[in-house]
Amino acid sequence: MAKIAVLGYGVVGSGTVEVLYKNKANLEKKAGQELEIKYILDLRDFPDSPYKDKFIKDFDTILNDPEVSVVVEVIGGIDPSYNYVKSSLLAGKSVVTSNKELVARKGAELLAIAREKGVNFFFEASVGGGIPIIRPLHQCLSANTIDEIAGILNGTTNFILTKMIRDNMSFDTALKIAQELGYAERNPSADVDGLDTCRKICILTSLAFGKHVYPDNIHTEGITKITPEDVAYCENFGGSIKLIGWAAKQEDDKVAIMVCPAFIHEDSQLAGVNDVFNAILVRGDSTGDVVFYGKGAGKLPTASAVVADIVIAVKMDKSSKSLYWEDSDQDFIEDTENITVANYLRVLDSDKKKIESIFGEVTYLTRKGAPENELAFITEPMSEKQCALNIKTLCDGSASLLGRIRVLEY
Amino acid sequence: MAKIAVLGYGVVGSGTVEVLYKNKANLEKKAGQELEIKYILDLRDFPDSPYKDKFIKDFDTILNDPEVSVVVEVIGGIDPSYNYVKSSLLAGKSVVTSNKELVARKGAELLAIAREKGVNFFFEASVGGGIPIIRPLHQCLSANTIDEIAGILNGTTNFILTKMIRDNMSFDTALKIAQELGYAERNPSADVDGLDTCRKICILTSLAFGKHVYPDNIHTEGITKITPEDVAYCENFGGSIKLIGWAAKQEDDKVAIMVCPAFIHEDSQLAGVNDVFNAILVRGDSTGDVVFYGKGAGKLPTASAVVADIVIAVKMDKSSKSLYWEDSDQDFIEDTENITVANYLRVLDSDKKKIESIFGEVTYLTRKGAPENELAFITEPMSEKQCALNIKTLCDGSASLLGRIRVLEY
Repeated sequence: MAKIAVLGYGVVGSGTVEVLYKNKANLEKKAGQELEIKYILDLRDFPDSPYKDKFIKDFDTILNDPEVSVVVEVIGGIDPSYNYVKSSLLAGKSVVTSNKELVARKGAELLAIAREKGVNFFFEASVGGGIPIIRPLHQCLSANTIDEIAGILNGTTNFILTKMIRDNMSFDTALKIAQELGYAERNPSADVDGLDTCRKICILTSLAFGKHVYPDNIHTEGITKITPEDVAYCENFGGSIKLIGWAAKQEDDKVAIMVCPAFIHEDSQLAGVNDVFNAILVRGDSTGDVVFYGKGAGKLPTASAVVADIVIAVKMDKSSKSLYWEDSDQDFIEDTENITVANYLRVLDSDKKKIESIFGEVTYLTRKGAPENELAFITEPMSEKQCALNIKTLCDGSASLLGRIRVLEY
Repeated sequence: MAKIAVLGYGVVGSGTVEVLYKNKANLEKKAGQELEIKYILDLRDFPDSPYKDKFIKDFDTILNDPEVSVVVEVIGGIDPSYNYVKSSLLAGKSVVTSNKELVARKGAELLAIAREKGVNFFFEASVGGGIPIIRPLHQCLSANTIDEIAGILNGTTNFILTKMIRDNMSFDTALKIAQELGYAERNPSADVDGLDTCRKICILTSLAFGKHVYPDNIHTEGITKITPEDVAYCENFGGSIKLIGWAAKQEDDKVAIMVCPAFIHEDSQLAGVNDVFNAILVRGDSTGDVVFYGKGAGKLPTASAVVADIVIAVKMDKSSKSLYWEDSDQDFIEDTENITVANYLRVLDSDKKKIESIFGEVTYLTRKGAPENELAFITEPMSEKQCALNIKTLCDGSASLLGRIRVLEY
């Protein structure tokens, strides 16, 4: 019998307990042994819970119980999760977590401890909620050299963008609705400023390229500056605006990584991903484009990913052979200013002649009701540095920049 | 060092050798040991191949070589593949195959032998080519009860349907183009009559529900009867016609399985899957809808799935703990006549009053240039038996049925 401890009884924690007991017989068949949740750690009391006898408040009880072989960390954040996870691994217990911040910041260190101790450190639920992506990326696509990864990795921002596109709403109005529906936090910064997406693309990139990518190094833009005017121009372009976390191998073998809103052509498999859904596109040298789609968050989807990890951790017991990346000094990450993409630009008080003299060939877009002194256009691909220089030159006189969104081809 | 034998040097076989040697260093890191292809079995000669020293013509050399631990069967068909695979497993060798016919017909027997001998029998490449689906379905979604699976599982038919829809072509013209491009065989029956899709949905259903589903028992319709008129009505319906292999758990705990062309609403994640691409939707009780998308065929995508299986087979060595289903007397499969779906029907020389008196409430569709004596409509969901009876009643007099396509909600 495998004894499990669950750290945190919030949305994902309670979902994990629910899914595990609901499918217990089937899961035990797959795990090859009985599964029992011995402890649930939470500072709150749950006197009415059917599991009330399992609740404890002191982590050391779990750490010092040799019967507990799998620790499930679903508290989130770094403190106290990091210490709990690290000491569990050091004590020879496998850990399953849904905590993307922890994996994005401390993954390399924790994976190294897990390897040294011969236990498992799994985190399928940290990216894409219930979508299987971590293990397929590692295992099934192992015969590929991964060239690119691009994902809609945050359901909250995708919901807001979908509202802005479908219902012609402003960002503020769409955010308010997302908050009312419980999709966005009262302080929505981690979502709308792109931080959550950044952590997730860092995890995927670390796994795909074998070296840890730290979120602090990645150019990250959110969706707060997107306007209904941009949405209208994107419709004329023939696509949708999506918040994309992406990583692409460069010719110099460095990896370009960025989080930014982007014009995505309607033919792309990412363009039709709406509302709170997520999708991750993986471009392999042999397999071509593979896309994984589903609910990126929510109690039961995320919990089902946690529980699947628990089953594999129990089945594999102490034979930790998979999932690993090295720590890194980030020298394989391309400087942001060298990253080359096409751009959508919206400017006031300029003229086509000046635009073309600076940017070369561009494609103009139109929208209904645009003022006469507004121009919007798509540039050819150019480096971030060059684009910034060109914008500066363009806005040297009376012209001003109203909006800039990158154009990505996925 | 793991020594591997590849049976068959056709498209997938040569791709497998190519992918394995191209990514050798990386694969060996993942497998934890060196990988060497010791034999390639083919009746033909390849005097110019860089691997010419590896070719043999006698399978017994492989069978009797204790050094060979993994046999890769990429010949296809039942004879001689079945004997080769069975005797390899009985000799204690793991087997990796891309052969959907073999798995669909003999999977339960071969899985039982693999389990008894403690070796692996893997077949990721048999469904969805380079799309990871077998292992994610088994592993990552293990915490779910699977309620439904629906897939666009055959690239040839999807290419033909895409041509018919986008370019307003007849089936025959689109098939001819598919043949010219090498997407369809000279004898295209296995594709266009739905047989290939049937084998694949049988494999997925066997895995999801744990009992072998034999293709012979499944109602299978192809796409040969679809006309440009049906395509036009489907556009008015607001969707696309796709060939779908699907399985759905019923209230009586039986499983309804069918292969049929279907109207799919444009909001579905399956509607935007075009050309030779495949997609598989899995509906789990916890995770909701998850969709896997990518190239369902082709040399390198399929080979990359084969090679990934080889790596896992080598890494897991003799610890076959996963992937299993039981043989079955098919009593869990719903009788076709009890399967309940909505239908699109196109009839000549009938009238709305008669249609509604027989079918109850229906939704009429329109198309440009329809003759006055043609009517097309969508019924409410009804059993196959009831639908057949209603059609018979409707066509009792002068009216005749021009087309019937099921309407599925995915």
